[in-house]
Amino acid sequence: MSVLIKNGRIITASDDYQADIFIDKDKISIIGENLSIPADKIIDASGKYVIPGGIDPHTHLDMPFMGTVSSDDFVTGTRAAAIGGTTTIIDFAIQTIGHSALEGLEIWHAKAEGKTAIDYGFHMILTDTEGDKISELKTLINEGVTSYKLFMAYPGALYMDDGNIYRTMRKAGEHGAIVCMHAENGIVIDEIVRNAVADGKTEPKWHALTRPDRMEAEAVHRTIAIGDVAEVPVYIVHLTSAAALEQVAMARNDGQAVFAETCPQYLFLDHSYYEKENFEGAKYVMSPPLREKWNQAELWNGLGTGNLQVVSTDHCTFRFNDQKQMGKDLFTQIPNGAPGIENRMSLIYQGGVLDGHISLNKFVEVTSTAAAKIFGLYPRKGTIAVGSDADVVIFNPNRKETISVDNPITHNMNVDYNAYEGFEVNGVSETVLSRGKIVVEDNKYVGNEGDGQFLKRGLFSD
Amino acid sequence: MSVLIKNGRIITASDDYQADIFIDKDKISIIGENLSIPADKIIDASGKYVIPGGIDPHTHLDMPFMGTVSSDDFVTGTRAAAIGGTTTIIDFAIQTIGHSALEGLEIWHAKAEGKTAIDYGFHMILTDTEGDKISELKTLINEGVTSYKLFMAYPGALYMDDGNIYRTMRKAGEHGAIVCMHAENGIVIDEIVRNAVADGKTEPKWHALTRPDRMEAEAVHRTIAIGDVAEVPVYIVHLTSAAALEQVAMARNDGQAVFAETCPQYLFLDHSYYEKENFEGAKYVMSPPLREKWNQAELWNGLGTGNLQVVSTDHCTFRFNDQKQMGKDLFTQIPNGAPGIENRMSLIYQGGVLDGHISLNKFVEVTSTAAAKIFGLYPRKGTIAVGSDADVVIFNPNRKETISVDNPITHNMNVDYNAYEGFEVNGVSETVLSRGKIVVEDNKYVGNEGDGQFLKRGLFSD
Amino acid sequence: MSVLIKNGRIITASDDYQADIFIDKDKISIIGENLSIPADKIIDASGKYVIPGGIDPHTHLDMPFMGTVSSDDFVTGTRAAAIGGTTTIIDFAIQTIGHSALEGLEIWHAKAEGKTAIDYGFHMILTDTEGDKISELKTLINEGVTSYKLFMAYPGALYMDDGNIYRTMRKAGEHGAIVCMHAENGIVIDEIVRNAVADGKTEPKWHALTRPDRMEAEAVHRTIAIGDVAEVPVYIVHLTSAAALEQVAMARNDGQAVFAETCPQYLFLDHSYYEKENFEGAKYVMSPPLREKWNQAELWNGLGTGNLQVVSTDHCTFRFNDQKQMGKDLFTQIPNGAPGIENRMSLIYQGGVLDGHISLNKFVEVTSTAAAKIFGLYPRKGTIAVGSDADVVIFNPNRKETISVDNPITHNMNVDYNAYEGFEVNGVSETVLSRGKIVVEDNKYVGNEGDGQFLKRGLFSD
Amino acid sequence: MSVLIKNGRIITASDDYQADIFIDKDKISIIGENLSIPADKIIDASGKYVIPGGIDPHTHLDMPFMGTVSSDDFVTGTRAAAIGGTTTIIDFAIQTIGHSALEGLEIWHAKAEGKTAIDYGFHMILTDTEGDKISELKTLINEGVTSYKLFMAYPGALYMDDGNIYRTMRKAGEHGAIVCMHAENGIVIDEIVRNAVADGKTEPKWHALTRPDRMEAEAVHRTIAIGDVAEVPVYIVHLTSAAALEQVAMARNDGQAVFAETCPQYLFLDHSYYEKENFEGAKYVMSPPLREKWNQAELWNGLGTGNLQVVSTDHCTFRFNDQKQMGKDLFTQIPNGAPGIENRMSLIYQGGVLDGHISLNKFVEVTSTAAAKIFGLYPRKGTIAVGSDADVVIFNPNRKETISVDNPITHNMNVDYNAYEGFEVNGVSETVLSRGKIVVEDNKYVGNEGDGQFLKRGLFSD
Repeated sequence: MSVLIKNGRIITASDDYQADIFIDKDKISIIGENLSIPADKIIDASGKYVIPGGIDPHTHLDMPFMGTVSSDDFVTGTRAAAIGGTTTIIDFAIQTIGHSALEGLEIWHAKAEGKTAIDYGFHMILTDTEGDKISELKTLINEGVTSYKLFMAYPGALYMDDGNIYRTMRKAGEHGAIVCMHAENGIVIDEIVRNAVADGKTEPKWHALTRPDRMEAEAVHRTIAIGDVAEVPVYIVHLTSAAALEQVAMARNDGQAVFAETCPQYLFLDHSYYEKENFEGAKYVMSPPLREKWNQAELWNGLGTGNLQVVSTDHCTFRFNDQKQMGKDLFTQIPNGAPGIENRMSLIYQGGVLDGHISLNKFVEVTSTAAAKIFGLYPRKGTIAVGSDADVVIFNPNRKETISVDNPITHNMNVDYNAYEGFEVNGVSETVLSRGKIVVEDNKYVGNEGDGQFLKRGLFSD
Repeated sequence: MSVLIKNGRIITASDDYQADIFIDKDKISIIGENLSIPADKIIDASGKYVIPGGIDPHTHLDMPFMGTVSSDDFVTGTRAAAIGGTTTIIDFAIQTIGHSALEGLEIWHAKAEGKTAIDYGFHMILTDTEGDKISELKTLINEGVTSYKLFMAYPGALYMDDGNIYRTMRKAGEHGAIVCMHAENGIVIDEIVRNAVADGKTEPKWHALTRPDRMEAEAVHRTIAIGDVAEVPVYIVHLTSAAALEQVAMARNDGQAVFAETCPQYLFLDHSYYEKENFEGAKYVMSPPLREKWNQAELWNGLGTGNLQVVSTDHCTFRFNDQKQMGKDLFTQIPNGAPGIENRMSLIYQGGVLDGHISLNKFVEVTSTAAAKIFGLYPRKGTIAVGSDADVVIFNPNRKETISVDNPITHNMNVDYNAYEGFEVNGVSETVLSRGKIVVEDNKYVGNEGDGQFLKRGLFSD
Repeated sequence: MSVLIKNGRIITASDDYQADIFIDKDKISIIGENLSIPADKIIDASGKYVIPGGIDPHTHLDMPFMGTVSSDDFVTGTRAAAIGGTTTIIDFAIQTIGHSALEGLEIWHAKAEGKTAIDYGFHMILTDTEGDKISELKTLINEGVTSYKLFMAYPGALYMDDGNIYRTMRKAGEHGAIVCMHAENGIVIDEIVRNAVADGKTEPKWHALTRPDRMEAEAVHRTIAIGDVAEVPVYIVHLTSAAALEQVAMARNDGQAVFAETCPQYLFLDHSYYEKENFEGAKYVMSPPLREKWNQAELWNGLGTGNLQVVSTDHCTFRFNDQKQMGKDLFTQIPNGAPGIENRMSLIYQGGVLDGHISLNKFVEVTSTAAAKIFGLYPRKGTIAVGSDADVVIFNPNRKETISVDNPITHNMNVDYNAYEGFEVNGVSETVLSRGKIVVEDNKYVGNEGDGQFLKRGLFSD
Repeated sequence: MSVLIKNGRIITASDDYQADIFIDKDKISIIGENLSIPADKIIDASGKYVIPGGIDPHTHLDMPFMGTVSSDDFVTGTRAAAIGGTTTIIDFAIQTIGHSALEGLEIWHAKAEGKTAIDYGFHMILTDTEGDKISELKTLINEGVTSYKLFMAYPGALYMDDGNIYRTMRKAGEHGAIVCMHAENGIVIDEIVRNAVADGKTEPKWHALTRPDRMEAEAVHRTIAIGDVAEVPVYIVHLTSAAALEQVAMARNDGQAVFAETCPQYLFLDHSYYEKENFEGAKYVMSPPLREKWNQAELWNGLGTGNLQVVSTDHCTFRFNDQKQMGKDLFTQIPNGAPGIENRMSLIYQGGVLDGHISLNKFVEVTSTAAAKIFGLYPRKGTIAVGSDADVVIFNPNRKETISVDNPITHNMNVDYNAYEGFEVNGVSETVLSRGKIVVEDNKYVGNEGDGQFLKRGLFSD
């Protein structure tokens, strides 16, 4: 199959020009002026942006957590992603303590294989690298799993102590891999939580009040310091606060290989959401939590300056009507997570480009290119260039939608609420190609389960 | 005329891929895999980089200065630039105090027209914007001169005081233009110089010792502060020191529109060169002067972090055997300036990419793309993309040369010494196209006087 | 005459203890427990603080400025100072451009001699150090005038350019003297003012809006940079803003000899005062102007951290009913200045100690000791120690007063308004000794014109 | 008994004046000019400084550690301290994990009681505050033990995890106490050590190479962050590096209650000492280790700026000839610690005052006053003021000594080497009074075992 995209305005992380694109099978084959090559399908992109498909490097589909399982699985989650203009996700496979990481990878392969609408890769959450297990990193790399996520949060569950972190980082560094960190001092936070619970503080807002931003910034600083000694590039996931950002900015200014992502929820939502009545604050219970509103301007500035490189979603959905209710009586029982996979591109275009914080090029960079480069997918993914996978989004900057659980153009996620309910966006992904195949046409999903392939990723390169 | 470049590895500021390029007349028309379009000329770029032609936004050709005239004019200077892989320069037209800026522009047009090997634009050095003269900015913009350089140095000559700087900045900001600054506190420096001369200090090294880096950093800070109040983007030319860089980094981190260039001389040479015997220190007399060697690592780091965006040359040649001798008895009489236009690309590839400070993409960005974007030449210049001018360099990363005034591959500048004499570079521009015309082939200049055109530049956009 | 102060709590910049003080003539002679030495006068200080008399190193009494003369002269101003607990002032003698500085000093000696209630010194405002005049510094030092104030503000009047500043600083540095700076970029500000006036902006608030804090911070940075090159300690007068403070903090952290004072108006008042109706904003027209309120917390923090060392007043009074009216139609004609000499000690005790920003020791340090040390008056002034001048204040921390132009305990200044009208202070200077003589007793002035002496000051020592 | 000290130059943290001091029993009773009060003993201090006795808030006497016991006990250690001009120490009592802290305090009381030459207090090293044990803090405060030391180093021994640190800090903060931290990330360090040992790296220098300064700075940052959330003042013990100091400086600049001490070893010695032949590097094995020499200038600057407040010694002696030999084959077996208690005052006077880094007042502050204030001993200790304990040192600034294990004026410590062997100091404590009793006269110890008393300390006050 071949596709010819005519008259679009092509935007990459660096370029911005008018041209036609000829797609031969799954690759971008030719880019040129006024191409008149015969094709199976011709798309007129006049007046629209032609951008690389979004890459969301932080999703949790079909994930067992806190006694339940995230409600979007690899079928529903990736379909919603596609509709929202995202053509690649990197989800997280999890190692069980005491077990082989490869065992965990196996389990996640089984969850995803043949199910996804778009291509996908896996980071590996490592929880145990004692003894021989550290040597599995080499195998994982061969399997295309080249990034490892560690947790300073969640003691007793995913938590890893500084010694194991150092050992894992050191080995990852030797192999040329990158280490991702959930940076919150969970040990201190658990102590604060215990005090709060003992004092009878049970409402959702206490989730946030027991996780101070200073404990995020502390963990970010520690990650950077240990990463420096271990000689490994580090990547801070879901950074939320000005205090944490300052740590990243200082290290980057010194020339250390430090990267960080933030998420739409931290750019658009804030602490006041926890005060919503009727337990609705529970919808926003996630870790790290939403912060005071003033942090948002600092995060947008961070995207503009380049101190933040990526916007991911940390998409991890739990239904309000039953799953979130598990914590009705105690905030610690509320499953942590919120939806976002489908709305990321429109939100960042609206809040970033239209509201004047970032350029069009930067929009492409933070939603796609940077993640591709950091996580070993470039040049296959993350750009519009000859030879790259034809993961292409026709983005209409002249279409306005109101995000709502009831609007099928904005909500196909398997969850009964939208975190951005009522937000208006002026710009929508209309047509989406995944490796040359049209999977979304005029905002309608036209693909099939299993269109997506597993991506063996390469090593980090700067 | 058409050209087909086969099998090259195309590098832009963001991308890196294998493809063929079809050039139709003066533009890049098609980029594709295995193109077999008939062309007047086919170039095999196997094993080589295909990069956007270099842009040197800081040159002084045929410039009257300190009682003499820079020895490279628009014929010799641009020819040397082309041979070195640079296809665009932005030179400086100068307003005479009390005269119209347009008068100055006229003079520089006369110097350049019909002479250049490559395309060129002009910044305007403004020395007098009192009264009605400030309104000339509008005309200058219409003439495609959209950036203005001001001097905090050289009192009594090019110097402008803070009030005039503010007024000029404010007006430039209103028009959407950008202001470039020679940031040294010339008022203080002149006082220090007077003291040194009074104390009988006459050798070349006193040129440097009377211009402390703190007086550069001070002027950089002042430029940034006034630029902030005037609401205009500012661009620091020839930044030399860690102290000055720190000021730029802090402002950029705060999100202000501040840009800065450094030059090869500050990355490769250092204060010790002033100690050379037989008056040879005079070869390196330029302003700002060479600094202590430890600054070099900080500047390279600045290029890596993005706190420095551009490498220009400040090419301004004076022959050692006669012109530099004017200051034999007194350093203040040595014409300020040094050569570099021809060696920039190879030096930055060697010192930046091969020595591990910057990536290949960053190499393209700092030598070409960033200048194009900052100075309103993008997307016409600064990239390899469909629709852009076919300013293309075939760069051979496997060819070693020793820079020398005697090596015709490295020195065609009209000056009797090379500042980098004896430096070895592993990477050379071999074939150079300017708007689709081959002007250098296998390191030999094959173009004609007047191939280059004047570039009306657009406004700064972020 | 001898005085015995019994049972007081003695507070110095470092110490805090209960003891009796025996004053023999003009000196503190003995400090001890339960002293029972016969004395001409016994003061019971039970329940009160015994602190060193305040030193206000920034006053402008009887100063011709902007076509009028400040309304407090050396009689009324020093009397008010004494009542407020200040026993030493350092006022500013002014050199007229083109004239000898010594001539200016002579004039100020004539203004003050035989008039003052308390001891006084002079800084010299230098406006012209060209040619031979620079050599007067040596004479000035011999005359006990060891600090020089320069202006980056007020072009055409007190302004000195960077070259003259450098020359003056260098010479001052050679002599071991210190240079004080009014740090605002007056050259830029004048340009902004011209624009505002041209736009018909005439109300008092435009005084503030045309003097942005960034232009203060810029001048502070420049002062520090030039001071560093000139190798002289520098002292920033009346620092007002967080932006300016940050510059001081960075330099001090680097170990440079940089000092700064702020004033009560910047700690207690803010930009909103310019919005007062009926031209009352004019009461607060001073340079630099009042800032946005959030700066106050930063300034208090600066006193706490030691980045700010001194609180002076910049006392410079103009009557609202006639003098301030000169600018009724145009803010540039409003004489710059406001009262404060009498209320400083109570305000800083209230806002600093009682509101928890500084300790009692720090209160003494910022109101007295630090100025004594910086300006060559220590150990004669600035402490309660054997051998020091008996400049002693009995401060009652249990007495509440409401500052008002109508309250004779808080307002004896010769001006028809109080800048702190209605502020409540819990702590008042009740009895004041100047060189052993009681000049204020139970809040009543009991001294004579001419009690005060001129102070020949020593050199700065760190 | 009464003592009259005549003609000395009295130096406190703030003051500097000539006066006589009359000591009645154990207190300073009167300070005055030309006192002629009858006294049991008259000391002529002409030409000498009279300063508050030194306070060394960090010593480890008679401490079981690493399978041996520190060689100086409370008899020999405090005698050496006295000879060196120190009149108060604060040693560390240790809680055994699983046991009551009070039990540990009991043990240390038994070690010290009736043995010491000078007054002493205890910090409590807490290792276990789980369950009810946290409530012992209240009792400890009542016992005059108002500061708690925690360890981020030494996992499996003194180490406490972040959760326990937070809990302990929070409770300490509620009580108004202060928390001291050994700030090194011991968890990471142990991992690095294991790797080094596995690689056959056994020499003393590996002790330093396995404890990178970045892991000190990390722990300092973490201490500050947790302290901020726990709302408690924190005190970093034995800070060694520029990287760690930077963390302290930033927090102090923000106004947080953060304090830090360094020690003479970090100001005078450096990493190169580990390269000494014949295992002599072992003499300098301590934690944190000696750093690269360039850090010294930064530490001295930190004392000058006030970012460092205290110089203690961390005196902890192990004989070279037998105890240090325990690690002959493996650096991890070398008992950590070095001598210093006796040489601190002379070293800091020499390196600080004479070499121009700090003033005389600052010398007194960092060796005595600051520790008294931070640790609840002021005004009883730490100053020369009426009512204070007569802990007084007559310091001769005109006497030169060469520090040596063989020089009885510089070495009375019970250890067979001196860390500063061969260093010359120009300034020596000659006569020392402890609570009015002369314990050292003309450099000879004339006191008795048990002269010293246990000091119940008050709470931290800022």
